[in-house]
Amino acid sequence: MNMEQNKKNFEGYLNQYRDGLLENIIPFWLEHSIDGRYGGYFSCLDRKGQVFDTDKFVWLQCRQVWTFAMLYNQVEKNQKWLDVALQGAEFLSKHGTDEDGNWYFSLTREGRPLVQPYNIFSDCFAAMAYGQLYNATGDAGHARIARDTFFNILKRQSNPKGKYDKACPGTRPLQGFALPMILTNLVLEIEHILDPAMVDQTIASGIDTVMNRFYRPEFGVVLENIGADGSFSDSFEGRLVNPGHGLEAMWFMMDLAARLRDKELMHKAVNISLSLMDFGWDEEYGGIFYFRDIKGHPPLQLEWDQKLWWVHLEAMVAMLKGYLHTGNPKCWQWFERLHAYSFDHYADQEHGEWFGYLTRQGKLLLALKGGKWKGCFHVPRGFYQAWKTLEQIEQNHAKAQLRGLES
Amino acid sequence: MNMEQNKKNFEGYLNQYRDGLLENIIPFWLEHSIDGRYGGYFSCLDRKGQVFDTDKFVWLQCRQVWTFAMLYNQVEKNQKWLDVALQGAEFLSKHGTDEDGNWYFSLTREGRPLVQPYNIFSDCFAAMAYGQLYNATGDAGHARIARDTFFNILKRQSNPKGKYDKACPGTRPLQGFALPMILTNLVLEIEHILDPAMVDQTIASGIDTVMNRFYRPEFGVVLENIGADGSFSDSFEGRLVNPGHGLEAMWFMMDLAARLRDKELMHKAVNISLSLMDFGWDEEYGGIFYFRDIKGHPPLQLEWDQKLWWVHLEAMVAMLKGYLHTGNPKCWQWFERLHAYSFDHYADQEHGEWFGYLTRQGKLLLALKGGKWKGCFHVPRGFYQAWKTLEQIEQNHAKAQLRGLES
Repeated sequence: MNMEQNKKNFEGYLNQYRDGLLENIIPFWLEHSIDGRYGGYFSCLDRKGQVFDTDKFVWLQCRQVWTFAMLYNQVEKNQKWLDVALQGAEFLSKHGTDEDGNWYFSLTREGRPLVQPYNIFSDCFAAMAYGQLYNATGDAGHARIARDTFFNILKRQSNPKGKYDKACPGTRPLQGFALPMILTNLVLEIEHILDPAMVDQTIASGIDTVMNRFYRPEFGVVLENIGADGSFSDSFEGRLVNPGHGLEAMWFMMDLAARLRDKELMHKAVNISLSLMDFGWDEEYGGIFYFRDIKGHPPLQLEWDQKLWWVHLEAMVAMLKGYLHTGNPKCWQWFERLHAYSFDHYADQEHGEWFGYLTRQGKLLLALKGGKWKGCFHVPRGFYQAWKTLEQIEQNHAKAQLRGLES
Repeated sequence: MNMEQNKKNFEGYLNQYRDGLLENIIPFWLEHSIDGRYGGYFSCLDRKGQVFDTDKFVWLQCRQVWTFAMLYNQVEKNQKWLDVALQGAEFLSKHGTDEDGNWYFSLTREGRPLVQPYNIFSDCFAAMAYGQLYNATGDAGHARIARDTFFNILKRQSNPKGKYDKACPGTRPLQGFALPMILTNLVLEIEHILDPAMVDQTIASGIDTVMNRFYRPEFGVVLENIGADGSFSDSFEGRLVNPGHGLEAMWFMMDLAARLRDKELMHKAVNISLSLMDFGWDEEYGGIFYFRDIKGHPPLQLEWDQKLWWVHLEAMVAMLKGYLHTGNPKCWQWFERLHAYSFDHYADQEHGEWFGYLTRQGKLLLALKGGKWKGCFHVPRGFYQAWKTLEQIEQNHAKAQLRGLES
């Protein structure tokens, strides 16, 4: 393939993600998810976008605020987008937290608390949402919520589930991958409201935790849980690998490596991504497994072999960023494979947006467009990241071509 | 089909369950599950029976004690079986409870507590195990553990998850089907150590709860969760149906109806069973779905369309008991269909015992013979129940034939 063809390819993909985001994904959520009566968003939408359940899951409420505020900040100062973010934030400010400022897991349509703040990721996504919103509004109230929530997360960090933690203390102390991983992303999201020294320190410790503790060179992948002392735990939890989760973390690491101009970190993150692709890809039916046991034992998760939308988006973003920063052709090959699989299987040509849940064989498991875990987040964020990364790839190639002509 | 052929069929099925239990299922667990070093049982066994994880889940430890004690009590005074039950009970007595007598959810191989007593079903299965064991040993210590545990369950009944309950009080109070359903069975299991008035009262209230509250005539099925006030809750939890769970409850109800000589209850339980079969059966690929939403919405459970071994065993027992007590030919037809599906899909001709987890299409999802939830319980209990029920069916037919000859 010559460079000219390559350039054409970039443009085609770039257009597909940009137009998909602006003409398909965002209009779907604008049309179907806004609760005009009580504020906030419906996330349980069937194939056509019709609401089938009105419960409001705080993860998804926050993530939709973030998405619309991010679009306003990064793509276009579209007042409609900001209004959508603001009406979600207003609902959340009114109903989202208990009296200690911990974010509930879910609320009724009207905003009454349904499920307690047992899950610290509600708080992580709230801090992200209000940090992004503050960028758009400059409203000190939004900055305050983001900052208070962030410090509350740090306070709860060593015992994130609090009294809801069912593990007996001392017997098999484990640390989970999700929180340190999300903190490395969150701290970049809200760095404009944090002390720079704290940002640098959180980044350094996050990179160390992800790349030196949860990444295990003996397996070539990132584990979901390790011992409190950093050891491998030969247990269901300790053997668990979630390839999509690892791939998402790796593009966070690539963003940090780019920021820090740390080539070694960049190459390590790209190599781990490729190793996760090899480990996670289903050679028989295509797509990436949801969970695998590092020793090949049966995992506890009965959904282990399913193919989930977000996994494939995170993988595509990781492969595109890997290609942008290292030019590794394996990254581009994986991206094209992932792109083909995803647009064949997840994109709904008839009613827009993406399906979320497929069987191992790639058949539709659930026809929903949104539910308890799928909302207005991974698809728009993934499309935005793919669009912008492809834009940079294209610009680099254009520059390289120009240099070629000049020399 | 004439009566002679019918009789032959009964015998063939009867032999298959009796011989399967005694020559295949029980030997598998005897050979592979005994932890000779620390006591108790391994339940995480791969296809060949090899141990792939050594954690000890209290549900399954208790259920295996129950199974071997039950076999000793009901089938044959085989000292080896009693010894197996006793060595499990010894491990559990030493390590199974916290200082308040609540049963942990899981333990390490050595017996150190891993997961707190957040789950009251550990206690239910412990009471069952020690009640059955007391029948075999007459040991007052076994009776005491069963009785203390039972009264502790009653005490915790209104708030079974205790501090681990994540629901915000008051917003959407729900009651779950599992505990009242299990209590109706448990009280029969340990009635020899309880006050008869209490047994009668628990039975009466259990029947009322299952048949008048969780069974909803407007849907024709049993729901997994209803409002605290008995109302239908139009939420993910409230819309949830677990057909296998309902079918298991219905054969408990048939046992109670037989004991009470309550024909109306018997016919109601049989009719609900048939309605659950119609609702749960997958016309496209065969087998019974794990979960369904009563309104046809997407359920939260990603494993909703999978075909689980225990569901099919409980369904077969329900259909056989329905046929025994009412002679309804639909029950026999369903039994034969379930039997064919199950022996085609779950029975492992090569290494014995049953597989547990299939995809919707009937392909193997996990090749394990035991894990966190599958142990030495549903297969042997189902085989025993099928064998004994077929024995009664055969005897009734023999009597009927004799009456036919005499008349």
